[in-house]
Amino acid sequence: MSYIIGIDLGGTNMVAALTYKNETIIAREKTETMADSGFANVVRRLAELVQRLMDGAGVSCRQVEGIGIGVPGYLNMMSGVVHFSPNFTGWTEVPLVDELHKHISLPVYIVNDVNAHALGEYRFGAGRGAEHIAVLALGTGVGGGLILDGRLYAGSTEGGGELGHIVVDPDGPRCECGCYGCLEAFAKAQAIADRTAMKLQQGKRSLIPGMVDGDIRSITPAVVAQAAEAGDQTAIEVWDEVGMYVGIAAAGLIQALSPQVIVIGGGIAGAGRFLMDPIRRTVETRALLVPASTCRLELSPLGDDAGLLGAISLVIEKR
Amino acid sequence: MSYIIGIDLGGTNMVAALTYKNETIIAREKTETMADSGFANVVRRLAELVQRLMDGAGVSCRQVEGIGIGVPGYLNMMSGVVHFSPNFTGWTEVPLVDELHKHISLPVYIVNDVNAHALGEYRFGAGRGAEHIAVLALGTGVGGGLILDGRLYAGSTEGGGELGHIVVDPDGPRCECGCYGCLEAFAKAQAIADRTAMKLQQGKRSLIPGMVDGDIRSITPAVVAQAAEAGDQTAIEVWDEVGMYVGIAAAGLIQALSPQVIVIGGGIAGAGRFLMDPIRRTVETRALLVPASTCRLELSPLGDDAGLLGAISLVIEKR
Repeated sequence: MSYIIGIDLGGTNMVAALTYKNETIIAREKTETMADSGFANVVRRLAELVQRLMDGAGVSCRQVEGIGIGVPGYLNMMSGVVHFSPNFTGWTEVPLVDELHKHISLPVYIVNDVNAHALGEYRFGAGRGAEHIAVLALGTGVGGGLILDGRLYAGSTEGGGELGHIVVDPDGPRCECGCYGCLEAFAKAQAIADRTAMKLQQGKRSLIPGMVDGDIRSITPAVVAQAAEAGDQTAIEVWDEVGMYVGIAAAGLIQALSPQVIVIGGGIAGAGRFLMDPIRRTVETRALLVPASTCRLELSPLGDDAGLLGAISLVIEKR
Repeated sequence: MSYIIGIDLGGTNMVAALTYKNETIIAREKTETMADSGFANVVRRLAELVQRLMDGAGVSCRQVEGIGIGVPGYLNMMSGVVHFSPNFTGWTEVPLVDELHKHISLPVYIVNDVNAHALGEYRFGAGRGAEHIAVLALGTGVGGGLILDGRLYAGSTEGGGELGHIVVDPDGPRCECGCYGCLEAFAKAQAIADRTAMKLQQGKRSLIPGMVDGDIRSITPAVVAQAAEAGDQTAIEVWDEVGMYVGIAAAGLIQALSPQVIVIGGGIAGAGRFLMDPIRRTVETRALLVPASTCRLELSPLGDDAGLLGAISLVIEKR
């Protein structure tokens, strides 16, 4: 029972990893998710992926403690049912754990992917040794996860930790959730691209049009980060503004929850200091001194493995 | 051991209550705090109050399980030290529990007064049966307390739950804490009085000047509530605006923590539906549907006894 399998089930790819003695990933397998191919087919692909992973490593079921799966969407960890996932066609109230058990005789646990990220930070990442952690994952959307008193916090609806929908400006733009001025409306990838495009349309000088062959609709946060790295003032301005909004949300979390660490992750965290510096400046002016002085603000050290390591953590939590 | 003593230690008065079998307050005593008379003197007054309470009820120390005290300020529940209290002259790092033990041979526990309120709601008030509760106490300042997963949440600094300093408008006025646009800057008593006075100075028609003999500096939230009750449109407008800001904070709590109930307490909650209606309207438009639909918004049913009942709850929690 020295092995654990963690799976990061994304809308595009599914990745499975095998760890030995909790920490070291000794093998990994990846395949297309085929999210539109129907629930039963995705489950079959998951089972095949797990089998291939174990076969490749010469590990049998008897040696594996369990499987943890990070799933994008709204789900019930206890029942193993995914209520809804925006990334999978037709996934409404699907019994993911029960269905997987038809293929695999191992304990299977599921968790929201951003909550997995929070568990991963708690056990393997920036939250090691801390008891109170908030994770903001900035990507296509903005997700959040909370570890409070050393446990994943889910709230009354298991939907707790929807930190992307903290209001950071009541007069802000409408968010996809229907509310106004949520963090996500300012800090998701498309919002960053749109903010950049608007500045360019206003005639700001920038390296960015040259970097995207003049097609400003193809701007991504990675491009804006690259431009900032090259000293582009317009790009730096975009990150200053986005960082300020993330900082307002972080300050709110500090006032309300006094965490020891707030971890900034997701693809957009690739902007590094261009994102973190304005977050830190904002927290300095907008959070109470005592809880702010005991709260670290850190980039996720887990990178692309955050979800996998979180899924593995979930199995460890269940001991 | 059927009796518990709860104390609400205010800056003006200290009130002690004796309960029998947890729930029923069978005796209470009250005296002036004399907050400026020095730490040792306040502690002596506390001890005398407790003795008078027990003597009056014919109860001996052996019959009392413990004493819980709600203290305004920033303190350490474990060590029993009050780091700082704005309500007491010279209270910096004072060992309240140790000092009381020189006078009283009973277990003594202390808790921040608003956290006491949260415990009181959890055990005796609007939070009965819930596991996740947020309390917003609106008064001279705006305090907050959180019960998460059935336990008082304190965070890493024991300063968690500073819900009065959640930013509800980043462009808002400066708060006493030094930040901008905190809930407290909109919803504390003086802010409500100032907002009302400003509307009157702008020439809005209102019953209020007549209610305060033309002295608009003497406006209180109670007067504004009374005017609203009488149909005064300016007063109702004030509550609509204040309620909107409280609602933004409540929506943020719902997104982040998905509590089962948010309790609105403190003296300003006396405005009743004039405050609660705009809070509810704001939450309806500003919070995610799933967590909002499972979260009740309630006026505190405990009234002036919230602190006392919270202090009593603290002793029960320690079992």
